[in-house]
Amino acid sequence: MLNQNHWTAGLHHDGSVLYVSNPKPKLGDVVTIRLRAPKDAPIRHIMLRTAPDGEQHFTKMERQGEDAICAYWGAEVRVTNPYLPYRFKVMSAEGAYWLTAMGVSRADATDIWDFKLIADYDAPAWLEDTVFYQIFPDRFNNGDPSNDVQAGEWSRRGYSTQQREWGSIPLPPQQVGGLDFYGGDLQGITQKLDYLQDLGVNALFLNPIFTAYTNHRYDVADYNHVDPHLGGDAALAELRRALDERGMRLILDVTPNHCGSENVWFLEALKDPNAPTAEYFTFNQYPDEYETWLGHKSLVKLNYRSQALRDVMYRGEDSVIRRWMHEPYQIDGWRLDVANMTARQGMVQLTHKVWREMRRAMKADNPQAYLFGENFYDGTPHLQGDELDAIMNYQGFTKPIWGWLQPELDPATLPAQVDPMPLPAEAVAEQMTRFAGAVPWVVTAQQFNLIDSHDTARILNLMGGDKARVRLAAALLMTMPGVPCIYYGDEIGMEGGPDPDNRRTMPWDEAAWDHDLRAYFQRLISMRRTAPALRRGGFQFLYAAGDVLAYQRQSVEQRLTMVAHRGKAASEHVRLAVWQAGIADGVTLTDTFTGATFTVEGGHVALGSLAAGGVLVLEG
Amino acid sequence: MLNQNHWTAGLHHDGSVLYVSNPKPKLGDVVTIRLRAPKDAPIRHIMLRTAPDGEQHFTKMERQGEDAICAYWGAEVRVTNPYLPYRFKVMSAEGAYWLTAMGVSRADATDIWDFKLIADYDAPAWLEDTVFYQIFPDRFNNGDPSNDVQAGEWSRRGYSTQQREWGSIPLPPQQVGGLDFYGGDLQGITQKLDYLQDLGVNALFLNPIFTAYTNHRYDVADYNHVDPHLGGDAALAELRRALDERGMRLILDVTPNHCGSENVWFLEALKDPNAPTAEYFTFNQYPDEYETWLGHKSLVKLNYRSQALRDVMYRGEDSVIRRWMHEPYQIDGWRLDVANMTARQGMVQLTHKVWREMRRAMKADNPQAYLFGENFYDGTPHLQGDELDAIMNYQGFTKPIWGWLQPELDPATLPAQVDPMPLPAEAVAEQMTRFAGAVPWVVTAQQFNLIDSHDTARILNLMGGDKARVRLAAALLMTMPGVPCIYYGDEIGMEGGPDPDNRRTMPWDEAAWDHDLRAYFQRLISMRRTAPALRRGGFQFLYAAGDVLAYQRQSVEQRLTMVAHRGKAASEHVRLAVWQAGIADGVTLTDTFTGATFTVEGGHVALGSLAAGGVLVLEG
Repeated sequence: MLNQNHWTAGLHHDGSVLYVSNPKPKLGDVVTIRLRAPKDAPIRHIMLRTAPDGEQHFTKMERQGEDAICAYWGAEVRVTNPYLPYRFKVMSAEGAYWLTAMGVSRADATDIWDFKLIADYDAPAWLEDTVFYQIFPDRFNNGDPSNDVQAGEWSRRGYSTQQREWGSIPLPPQQVGGLDFYGGDLQGITQKLDYLQDLGVNALFLNPIFTAYTNHRYDVADYNHVDPHLGGDAALAELRRALDERGMRLILDVTPNHCGSENVWFLEALKDPNAPTAEYFTFNQYPDEYETWLGHKSLVKLNYRSQALRDVMYRGEDSVIRRWMHEPYQIDGWRLDVANMTARQGMVQLTHKVWREMRRAMKADNPQAYLFGENFYDGTPHLQGDELDAIMNYQGFTKPIWGWLQPELDPATLPAQVDPMPLPAEAVAEQMTRFAGAVPWVVTAQQFNLIDSHDTARILNLMGGDKARVRLAAALLMTMPGVPCIYYGDEIGMEGGPDPDNRRTMPWDEAAWDHDLRAYFQRLISMRRTAPALRRGGFQFLYAAGDVLAYQRQSVEQRLTMVAHRGKAASEHVRLAVWQAGIADGVTLTDTFTGATFTVEGGHVALGSLAAGGVLVLEG
Repeated sequence: MLNQNHWTAGLHHDGSVLYVSNPKPKLGDVVTIRLRAPKDAPIRHIMLRTAPDGEQHFTKMERQGEDAICAYWGAEVRVTNPYLPYRFKVMSAEGAYWLTAMGVSRADATDIWDFKLIADYDAPAWLEDTVFYQIFPDRFNNGDPSNDVQAGEWSRRGYSTQQREWGSIPLPPQQVGGLDFYGGDLQGITQKLDYLQDLGVNALFLNPIFTAYTNHRYDVADYNHVDPHLGGDAALAELRRALDERGMRLILDVTPNHCGSENVWFLEALKDPNAPTAEYFTFNQYPDEYETWLGHKSLVKLNYRSQALRDVMYRGEDSVIRRWMHEPYQIDGWRLDVANMTARQGMVQLTHKVWREMRRAMKADNPQAYLFGENFYDGTPHLQGDELDAIMNYQGFTKPIWGWLQPELDPATLPAQVDPMPLPAEAVAEQMTRFAGAVPWVVTAQQFNLIDSHDTARILNLMGGDKARVRLAAALLMTMPGVPCIYYGDEIGMEGGPDPDNRRTMPWDEAAWDHDLRAYFQRLISMRRTAPALRRGGFQFLYAAGDVLAYQRQSVEQRLTMVAHRGKAASEHVRLAVWQAGIADGVTLTDTFTGATFTVEGGHVALGSLAAGGVLVLEG
């Protein structure tokens, strides 16, 4: 991907304010686009290429300034379309090089490789300063034992509810059918806000809280009420009030793809094929054969051909999506479960339309709301500015990081599609670039980044128990573009294999905590929330090979260079080509963690040997 | 792009019948997907990855057979969505490699990189055997001097019509305003069908023939009549009849983006702001300020917010698009001028919707009709199966070929955005792969490929007068995937710089012809129309570096390996790694042109020195 020895590696543009005078323009605005290039490169001139209304248009860039080793080129462009792709044609003595969001090439590319500006985009500005904390409500803290689900309170599919002791290991579904409850509730979360503030996070993402029958509550029975076993609607209002006092945000989890087979809408439809809600579902043969989520009869697929469903789900004033954004709950946005499959059924492919409509409805109530979807695969077609603000960034962040840091596994123990071998850093950078490059920068910067969740094994287990690699993963999470989210308990070193082992109860006995790890998370979170380069800086990969990954984040105020080393032992001496990042000879770089200093010479900085799982955060 | 020394270079899949049991499936069909791999590669197993309704799904492939050096893996997939992207995960001892339409990588990619199947797709099957010939009607042949435009017959914008002598050089617009006429007409084309059949082409693409005032007729005055100076409607009916006798096809050129300012619809709108046609246009201030094509007041932008315009343009029984597909004209499809800009105006971006509607209307009349658009840039978003069948494939074919074969130019003589330096073959393969890989194979195979047109300088001029390179360009045109089109007169060595010099009259004095070149074109056209591997074979790049480009086309019946050399002098000895293409040691490859034979040894074939501008077409 990167040829570090060639001057083109020093060409750089991203969508941050250093390179785009107004990253969130209104239609009709004039925006200055800038490019950084090595000062002594054999460049004749540079053309900015746009395509208003689909017709190619070139603007000759001006060499507007320079510093010790870089020249800065700029050109103005008027934003006449809602979606403005652009790229650079760098005319050099060696021929023309295209610079797109995918990198430098003599070959031209399709428009999806372009950098992209979007006009009139309602971005949730608060995300810049946000670190999320994800809570699985039944397992975080039991604030009110009086509302606990009782043993035998109900039965489903041959299983009966069980009341489990805090700290005991969750039981597998084939043993308990998702009916083991620990008593966690919203009151319990409200009571622990001091803990969360002390950790440094300032936003909560809660897994489903609406009335349902299983512990995960994805089998929603009633979208319009908080489960009484979690404290009911009042406990949510109280949590909201308490969060407001601390300036904290709140995101809820909803499943627009399906509901539970005991959902009030579905029960009405089962009672009467002419019920108004019957069209919310797809009955292949009424009443027994209906479309489901991946064949689970208890999870009933919703049918978005129904205009009435769209009204009740997101268009109406009192729709699911909108009602919880109103007082007294005023949630700050939604996480959409199974967003990848929603409104898709064979011939019927309505996802784009449904997200567009949902976005419009939601942003009309609150333009600062955050709408993000679960998507383990490719969400980029939904991230072009008119649908979702973000997805859970598994493909663009989580999976490459996992791949890079995972131990070598035994293929015999794995599903056939799982790669037992770690990824080299080259592939990490490639994959991240492919996904980030496919969407506008403002959208990339607000992707929901994570290193694990209620749907995956915990990071500690994924790293084979190696805490140095957990730290490294956390450092990447806090320093790469995107909004970081911590899965509850990762910060104290909680263990957990795949679902349901990843949903263990949070231990509140501090003796069970890894206090060093927690202090490291605190430090990273604080850095993420205060360092301008991490909050709003651009991004450039500087090196990606084997065990070492290096990148720069730069804002107007600050320049940070991260160097990460996954090796199990100390590295060979590392010499990083920082001329690519515009860092001149003589500059001193200081490691934020240790205070160690390094001086740039001959375009490079000699960093010595990197520790196993070591990270440098170099300022300067 | 290609690491020829690694076993992964031998992984191959494309959308042809060797690898997809039914490349044009119906929804619900089961299709077998196959992959070729080196037999001795360290592959543990291979997973076929699909994503029905957006959810990742893996199918373990079976090793179904092998030959001397290859293993063939297969898996069945049911086509449950209209659009089915798929990729391969090759689980090897070195880790997992993804194979997508963009090649092999350890990194995962966005879905647009996938191979793609589309269901229920109406593909014009006749394109497989088709070689087009493009004619600029005023300049091909004067069949009826009685209908010629007379000198001074009309005046426009300060210019007056001129009747020019056949063979004289076209005058620049600033001298004649596009009003110089040579008398070519449809009768003239009908009279030359023997010539065209002798050349070997079997389909015509005519530039605009509807009533208009300029020689190029893009300023359409009346979409509903053939210009009387071209012979009128009757001459078109007669041409159609004559073509039918010879089994030849006919494509017309229409501009859905704009019409002339003397168009009957616009004149009505100018007369009366309440005329029914007034909404076909965008008046910023009636009647003088209206939207145009790139500021040309004589070319008035059509407004597709108007439902009435859509009816009259393509939805109605008697609409422009449909009426000419009916008897007695029964044209076989349309070329859409300025397709890239059509239905795009600032905030209003209706292109996708308009092409979908137009396709539906047109295919309802004739599912075998061919709908392709002018697009010098990225047409791939419109080539996913539900809009256009093709675009004029400038980005995916023409421009890389031009770039590879062009002489080094003097930058001082060029517009600032034009690259004076030739492209290396690596960039040619990269660019072609990026554009072809973005669309389904069945769509790639029917792209409208060309080496020049009425909108570009002629190929002879683009090649700096080097006829060896003209031949090379023609050989690439006839052997790469896509439907080839020859611009009238290229086959006899016509010269011509940019418009209007590229629109010189066709000389019918055979003494002016390059007979050798014409014979070469004849031979290539004949090969293209008869060789199964060129008509319906798959495609694989085998080598792309500097002066040499090599690729394979393979069908059930035939395997051809093309090796092209752009060098100005004979090459060094070339040794091609044909093991990648599944060609075993001991196989003899025979050059179609010379009969020379080469035997494969050690996975390679030694081809000796390649001639300047030389092409080998090796069968075996």
